[in-house]
Amino acid sequence: MSFSNFAKRINLLNENVVDLVLQKAGSEPNVISLAGGTPPFPIPDQTWNELVAKAKDNPKYSQYSHDVLGDPDLRKLVASDLIKELGYSVKPEEILITVGSSSALFSCFLTFINPGDEVIFFSPGYPGNIAQIILAGGRIKYVNLHEEKEWDMDFELINQAINDRTKLIIFSEPSNPTGRVFSLETKSQLLKIAKKKNLIIIADETYRSLVYKDTIFKSTMTLKNAKQTSILIRSFSKDFSMSGFRLGYIYARKDFIQKLEAVHIAMNICPPTISQELAKLMFLQKGKAYKGYANGYDKRREIMCERLDRLNKFFNYFRPMGGFSIFVKYHKKMNSMNFFEYLLRKVKVAVMPGIAFGPGGEGHFRITFAASIEKINKAFDRIEKL
Amino acid sequence: MSFSNFAKRINLLNENVVDLVLQKAGSEPNVISLAGGTPPFPIPDQTWNELVAKAKDNPKYSQYSHDVLGDPDLRKLVASDLIKELGYSVKPEEILITVGSSSALFSCFLTFINPGDEVIFFSPGYPGNIAQIILAGGRIKYVNLHEEKEWDMDFELINQAINDRTKLIIFSEPSNPTGRVFSLETKSQLLKIAKKKNLIIIADETYRSLVYKDTIFKSTMTLKNAKQTSILIRSFSKDFSMSGFRLGYIYARKDFIQKLEAVHIAMNICPPTISQELAKLMFLQKGKAYKGYANGYDKRREIMCERLDRLNKFFNYFRPMGGFSIFVKYHKKMNSMNFFEYLLRKVKVAVMPGIAFGPGGEGHFRITFAASIEKINKAFDRIEKL
Repeated sequence: MSFSNFAKRINLLNENVVDLVLQKAGSEPNVISLAGGTPPFPIPDQTWNELVAKAKDNPKYSQYSHDVLGDPDLRKLVASDLIKELGYSVKPEEILITVGSSSALFSCFLTFINPGDEVIFFSPGYPGNIAQIILAGGRIKYVNLHEEKEWDMDFELINQAINDRTKLIIFSEPSNPTGRVFSLETKSQLLKIAKKKNLIIIADETYRSLVYKDTIFKSTMTLKNAKQTSILIRSFSKDFSMSGFRLGYIYARKDFIQKLEAVHIAMNICPPTISQELAKLMFLQKGKAYKGYANGYDKRREIMCERLDRLNKFFNYFRPMGGFSIFVKYHKKMNSMNFFEYLLRKVKVAVMPGIAFGPGGEGHFRITFAASIEKINKAFDRIEKL
Repeated sequence: MSFSNFAKRINLLNENVVDLVLQKAGSEPNVISLAGGTPPFPIPDQTWNELVAKAKDNPKYSQYSHDVLGDPDLRKLVASDLIKELGYSVKPEEILITVGSSSALFSCFLTFINPGDEVIFFSPGYPGNIAQIILAGGRIKYVNLHEEKEWDMDFELINQAINDRTKLIIFSEPSNPTGRVFSLETKSQLLKIAKKKNLIIIADETYRSLVYKDTIFKSTMTLKNAKQTSILIRSFSKDFSMSGFRLGYIYARKDFIQKLEAVHIAMNICPPTISQELAKLMFLQKGKAYKGYANGYDKRREIMCERLDRLNKFFNYFRPMGGFSIFVKYHKKMNSMNFFEYLLRKVKVAVMPGIAFGPGGEGHFRITFAASIEKINKAFDRIEKL
């Protein structure tokens, strides 16, 4: 007996391209997949030892976090980190620890979107937001980024896209998939528009610890008065190479945090206790961990760029300023789903089709260098045989 | 600058009584709180050792679960467990591993409720559902349980409550807060109504492993054809005493699971990898773990009942058949929020006011025996001084 009575929001969801691609890539033998991105670095041995020494015989580790906003010590660590970075007062009660940045983002959309409200989504942009916005009842207003200007924002398009139903602007920085970091001036201009039009900016800075040399990244939140109308989303996934532990956070005005908290409790009660304990340990070793990860990715980025450069008859791209993927334009005349299938069939290499990142991603693919160097080289050895 | 432009669903949320009570109880010094319930047993040492031996130097543990439905081996273990229990075929692809039963329940509401749809909620019932239903756009139709019949369902009230907007029926069993287990006949009658009226039953069996002697618990899902129109929610939190690890699951028809998966991905991407690895280890030791926990709680239940019996001039209650709390009727003439404040002020003992569980809970409080025996006795020593 088939069932046809799902909620309307479910019927509005398109096929999840990311999930489909990862499944296809995973189900074929001998495929080298650079489609998904998850940090390749294990938790350091010493950290495991410290964590388990604390956890043993301690019922706290099997219990809910006693504070649903998140472990108070962890929020203090985050706050003091933000104070150094942003240069103004940040209070622990302005921070909500979440189950990864996903539940942070989803909580934002449920907290601010009424059915029919519109969200400015820069394309190519993070695919996860698309389903989140639709499930919250929102409509996505795709605004293409300016490829010729290394995927910078185009304010003419932004102004055209805003109307009376517009409620939010969402973007990730460093951008997934392009690796773009925006200038502070650009963000200041965006903030001015947001203030004028009474919009809230959601700055998803999941990749903020992966910014490469010669690029200066300053958070949207460093802008004067940004906090009044902006929400900062961060994740421990990339900072501490712990995406499997599902831990992120929101920094925002206290009245926003109180509503976001109510939504996040309904969704997940609280983030995992062990993940919060791990994050506290990682904070203490942060200098080391950070540098190690960033250096590791930088080397991989260089290798991948060098391999792409050899293939410049077929591909072009902008060197990412941050993140761990490259958004590549292919010259072959086929759509990005077909190009994905073509690469998979011909050389058994999986990449993420550009269309997953919205209409502005068509004609491209995302390829990630969050993988072993051996795997990256093997994938390109195959691609060169095309 | 105050902000007044939250989504309407946010403004419909009432104050979260549970959160408020836990915060009040936590902020006063020397309070003994039996208001919240989280398993008091630590993860066994040996399990920690095995887990960390596997995790060390293994990047898999810091990464997303490779299968967003949940670890395939864990889903196989769950499926084979369900086959034994339910007596029919259960496939791993009919199981979705979630971030606790909370995200499982929230995913269900988002998947089936259109704005204005009604959900039958038995009161007293699990408070978490109230915010979840409202955030999904639903309306709650409270149906009081029959206190004189030991909190059994009242079919006259159920039939009166159903109308054209009714979409779902939700209940927890063993019930949080009453500890009630329903007869298979009662559930069969409910299922008949659901089928006739085209409703979906969500059977939240989070406490299913905590059922005390002399009570037989058979899942709603054991009923013939239940699966066509019912969804089973389970949790590893109580089964394996690991609520802080945030792990639960949904068992349902494959077409339901596919939609629920899309929602859960948008919400959380995947459950924590380490929690899934822990659950697999706990499955292997299950016989032992289960028995240990159930016996531990049974002893605590006996002690709490005995302490309550001594105070039968002030309180009466039904001995719970399962779960780890008792839902107590107090004779004093005041509402349950005031009674909570009164107990807190007079003897520094915190309990959960009955109104948190819907209007059918007024005049009662929930007190949990998921605590050390010493703590339980200390709390009652104080209450006796009232």
